[in-house]
Amino acid sequence: MSENGKPVIGIMGGTGDLGSGLAKAWARAGYRVVIGSRAAEKAAAAASELGEGVSGAANLDAATQADIVIIAVPFSSHDATLEEIKPAVQGKIVVDAAVPLVPPKVSVVQLPAAGSAAQMAQTILGEGVKVVSAFHNVGAAKLHAGGRVECDVLVFSDDKDARNAVIELCSAVATRGVGGGSLANSAAAEALTSVLIWINRTYKCLGAGISITGLDTPKA
Amino acid sequence: MSENGKPVIGIMGGTGDLGSGLAKAWARAGYRVVIGSRAAEKAAAAASELGEGVSGAANLDAATQADIVIIAVPFSSHDATLEEIKPAVQGKIVVDAAVPLVPPKVSVVQLPAAGSAAQMAQTILGEGVKVVSAFHNVGAAKLHAGGRVECDVLVFSDDKDARNAVIELCSAVATRGVGGGSLANSAAAEALTSVLIWINRTYKCLGAGISITGLDTPKA
Repeated sequence: MSENGKPVIGIMGGTGDLGSGLAKAWARAGYRVVIGSRAAEKAAAAASELGEGVSGAANLDAATQADIVIIAVPFSSHDATLEEIKPAVQGKIVVDAAVPLVPPKVSVVQLPAAGSAAQMAQTILGEGVKVVSAFHNVGAAKLHAGGRVECDVLVFSDDKDARNAVIELCSAVATRGVGGGSLANSAAAEALTSVLIWINRTYKCLGAGISITGLDTPKA
Repeated sequence: MSENGKPVIGIMGGTGDLGSGLAKAWARAGYRVVIGSRAAEKAAAAASELGEGVSGAANLDAATQADIVIIAVPFSSHDATLEEIKPAVQGKIVVDAAVPLVPPKVSVVQLPAAGSAAQMAQTILGEGVKVVSAFHNVGAAKLHAGGRVECDVLVFSDDKDARNAVIELCSAVATRGVGGGSLANSAAAEALTSVLIWINRTYKCLGAGISITGLDTPKA
């Protein structure tokens, strides 16, 4: 924990677009953030550009320092990154934000045989890790820009407390977190990323996202 | 075509909640609708309750009369219904609205091995049928109530013209249709149905839906 009582957030792939956007947003909200990269020097250089509250380290070191670990690496590095940090994250919350895009057809849904990247993460990390899945449908540009992000973040986990902790982390980055059920349901958000990429191209818009409607309609 | 130039819409499973809601909404918008059921008498009885513009027939007969055919049957009848109407829909648009829910755990995403129900439909019906996938995330109650439905309908197809025709049909039922890409992308909307069921239960709301944000943001 940080001195202010907030969890320290480690971001694997923190030098990428999404990872650095999340780092910036959480640092702005008063969280201590450690961004991880394969090379410690690369992480440190990127951290210094992100400003106060953000430091950099090699992935395993960043995961060790963190209370909550975010996986924001490209899907091609997903499994290897999880294997690397596995010993450092036992008992912790790991938030998988990796999307199983298969280049070159990134606008076509191609879910893994396991159902979702998040379920693959749980299998690799084992039962001792609270895997949560989130942040698949937030454009990195919106996080970098700051201010209110006009889309919801669907949050999935088999562990209710971990899911709720990440819903709280969403509001810290100025977006609304909405619980979406168990880890298996992550397939919906992971698949939606390709749909949103297709919509951005076809409707010539920047950063399409989703919002959950009807949440305020009380049950009769 | 109807005398007013609008396509005749056949709805398989037209006696169910979603099917009858769509029938009511399209009839209200001036479309001629034929609802299909396994038993012609059951379809005729349901049609008479839905009022003007709606007639009923056995599935195959309804599909023969229609220009555009909607599949709104439970997933357990999905494949058998498609096999039954296959000879009557060659060259037509078939809109698959069936969601691959696997009871009893309908709030858990359990996509079929083929990737989506829509891709299964294309395989069964063959290349001569323009399969479109839509209406997975609209609560039937909203359609029955009438008025503006506060959610978007994602529309998928490998055939651009067919996709656009169904986007137009969406606006006729007072909701916004948004293209979502190829048929493979239907997995996202099909999976979302379980997520929305989970949200309805957990947040104690009625009829959660989705809306696509950022569509009005012009590309820089």
